[in-house]
Amino acid sequence: MRRVFIANRGEIAVRIVRACRSLGIESVVGVSEADTDSMAARMADQAVVIGPAPSGQSYLRADLLVKAALETRCDAVHPGYGFLSERSSFVRACSDAGLIFIGPSAEAIDAMGDKITAVSLATKADVPRVPGSGAMADPAAARRIAEEIGYPVLVKATAGGGGRGMRVVRSGAEMEAAFRSAASEAQSAFGDATLYVEKFIERARHIEIQVIGDQHGNIVHLGERECSTQRRHQKLIEEAPSPALSAAQRAAMGQCALRLARNVGYFGAGTVEFVVDARDNRFYFLEMNTRIQVEHPVTEMITGRDLVAEQIRVAAGLPLSFTQDEITLHGHAIECRLNAEDPDRNFLPRPGLITGWKAPAGPGIRLDSHCCAGYTVPPYYDSMIGKLIVHAPTRSEAIAKMTAALSDLQVQGVTTTAAFHEAVLADADFAAGQVTTRWVEETFLPARKAARATQEATA
Amino acid sequence: MRRVFIANRGEIAVRIVRACRSLGIESVVGVSEADTDSMAARMADQAVVIGPAPSGQSYLRADLLVKAALETRCDAVHPGYGFLSERSSFVRACSDAGLIFIGPSAEAIDAMGDKITAVSLATKADVPRVPGSGAMADPAAARRIAEEIGYPVLVKATAGGGGRGMRVVRSGAEMEAAFRSAASEAQSAFGDATLYVEKFIERARHIEIQVIGDQHGNIVHLGERECSTQRRHQKLIEEAPSPALSAAQRAAMGQCALRLARNVGYFGAGTVEFVVDARDNRFYFLEMNTRIQVEHPVTEMITGRDLVAEQIRVAAGLPLSFTQDEITLHGHAIECRLNAEDPDRNFLPRPGLITGWKAPAGPGIRLDSHCCAGYTVPPYYDSMIGKLIVHAPTRSEAIAKMTAALSDLQVQGVTTTAAFHEAVLADADFAAGQVTTRWVEETFLPARKAARATQEATA
Repeated sequence: MRRVFIANRGEIAVRIVRACRSLGIESVVGVSEADTDSMAARMADQAVVIGPAPSGQSYLRADLLVKAALETRCDAVHPGYGFLSERSSFVRACSDAGLIFIGPSAEAIDAMGDKITAVSLATKADVPRVPGSGAMADPAAARRIAEEIGYPVLVKATAGGGGRGMRVVRSGAEMEAAFRSAASEAQSAFGDATLYVEKFIERARHIEIQVIGDQHGNIVHLGERECSTQRRHQKLIEEAPSPALSAAQRAAMGQCALRLARNVGYFGAGTVEFVVDARDNRFYFLEMNTRIQVEHPVTEMITGRDLVAEQIRVAAGLPLSFTQDEITLHGHAIECRLNAEDPDRNFLPRPGLITGWKAPAGPGIRLDSHCCAGYTVPPYYDSMIGKLIVHAPTRSEAIAKMTAALSDLQVQGVTTTAAFHEAVLADADFAAGQVTTRWVEETFLPARKAARATQEATA
Repeated sequence: MRRVFIANRGEIAVRIVRACRSLGIESVVGVSEADTDSMAARMADQAVVIGPAPSGQSYLRADLLVKAALETRCDAVHPGYGFLSERSSFVRACSDAGLIFIGPSAEAIDAMGDKITAVSLATKADVPRVPGSGAMADPAAARRIAEEIGYPVLVKATAGGGGRGMRVVRSGAEMEAAFRSAASEAQSAFGDATLYVEKFIERARHIEIQVIGDQHGNIVHLGERECSTQRRHQKLIEEAPSPALSAAQRAAMGQCALRLARNVGYFGAGTVEFVVDARDNRFYFLEMNTRIQVEHPVTEMITGRDLVAEQIRVAAGLPLSFTQDEITLHGHAIECRLNAEDPDRNFLPRPGLITGWKAPAGPGIRLDSHCCAGYTVPPYYDSMIGKLIVHAPTRSEAIAKMTAALSDLQVQGVTTTAAFHEAVLADADFAAGQVTTRWVEETFLPARKAARATQEATA
């Protein structure tokens, strides 16, 4: 492999340019008309315009990307994350054109992309899934299942979504009424009153296992990432390791992830996501992401391994450069996603010209970003302007280091989420490692709003 | 400890501000009139002007620094490296004023600062020193000693320096003539013809052991740094671990360093420097530096410990935050010292306005610097503009990563040594770990000059 085409933008495009460079491989970045002056375009050996700014006319156009990769004489394509990274049709378009896709096989992407197939594969691989039922004929049947699973449960419409046709049921006595009202809501919302029962995990953690495999049958896991600090299912802060897992739990989850991945002959980097019940730490399969993830750096920090370089190596046919035994975890890493958003205006995106930019630095500090002073954050894409990552011997030192690094960071011209992160890191729940997936929305943000109201009233 | 006064400038002042911040301690930096707009001045909680630009009127004025520390209500002083960092009189001035000196005791500095005391302490602590003699009466006596030590030896003037009154003697037959000519040169140069004999280590490595101790009797070593890539005794590139040491040799040198440090009741960070004979890897005590060193980051990278934060912690009376068993070495780190100098003009300093500055970043990349676009490197101080440090699983990956990072770095306005470092890293001798202390001057630079001459002749 001599020349890699990067079918992405932003910080991950910069990250891939750097990984290529450290491997002595050239890189070409395909950019939209809005990204011709981007950092990735300036850093890569070549930049080529794919199409207009809207993603549908550039970053999502497999045909144009493959054409550009061929015209610039690349022999491989790195899809980054988002955009076309999990489209098996893009993998096939690449291989039809003789290009190596830096990622798993189209078959593995298809298997994991289809939720029904993925869940059935998980079951086959003995990976626990959230206990639930098939379609329930009546409240009595639902009650029998609920008693097996244990309360609380959710009664959910099979045709449902967005919380409609869904009820939380906390005891047998509540079932009859809840079932009837959910069924009637489902009927009117979806034209289908069919319901099923599922265990309701009130306080859930999102914990995921990083895996990477080569094309020679070797596959390893690199421990977990704790991603419970979310808002509206968007991860805000990620950590490795999780403050909640024991070594035995980590090993058990790692083995589950590897069994699942092996069952689909997985190679490349991937992540098996789990829901973990905060009450008893039982874990349940959620989904598998068949690409590099935004939060991969926390794993890199505690393992000392370069996952993007490793993706490229295994795509080129090389064996994994480490064994499972060689993966050891050191210290604690935290990542804060920095967005050009206003946390006080409901995280409204704030694209625009960055007039000043000073990056934090020092031991255990890493900033993955495509931004600098003079760069205009375009309005067409997501609002992430960088990822600040710290590494320290312990979690409390990592929190202190991140706090210092956030105050060291200086961004002028656009509003960012840096101060929001500082407030989260200063929270006692966060310090105690007690954060679950709805904590930001249900606990942290309301408390913050109340404090501000009190403050304003006093003033 | 709530507020630390920084009696230094440049990158180490920035480094100390960051360490304070990560510990939740305020910082005040004392600056010369040339440094009022420095990065450290802008980052610290407060900056106070000590005096005019020349160091003799500011950074070397213990009285003014202590006064400023008291006036800004600091309770401790961090001396950095260079300037007053190894002056016991400054330690005493601080403690007389009720300020904690962040470093070892005045007694330890005195003991190690005096070469005769230091060498005698090393002997007492069973730390090998370069074999040598006392004053020699005549060539016959010198020959007897030389035969004991083994050829080659150096015949050196006791009053000497700068190579005068010094001869390399490679066999007994050469002794008589060499002795007489050295004695006569010593007589005319220093008015004293006294000579002694010392083992001549033709191919020497400079390897040093990092130690740190607390005020409760705990002291540990953090492995070695290889600093053989030097020019005129100035270190250019440092690595950890050394490509030349076995685990047993590392342990032996570490134990020597600890015995020596324990014998003077050492606390704080310190470095025991050794000369290592490249032929047989025997090591000999050179000196102990009683301060943090420029090259400390490579040790931080492979141990995951923050040495500057630890200096502050132990100065505040806290016990060491790690034991010897908890110090484990991971991967390989390299540091390149970036200077505003022209390697093609005999490393002539090139201070001036930095018009463009783009820092490398990414996994395992660290840049410790006080520079940015718009900063003017003043002509009054050393020409170091930053230290680029990389960390990777293996030495060859670290070399590749450093090469990529150096090409990622962009500095406009001043000439730097970045391209020189790229050339060193690309050299087969460096790749093979074969560099000794005179390699840059005797092998690398002449070859580089010859290649350039050939190139120009061809053109």
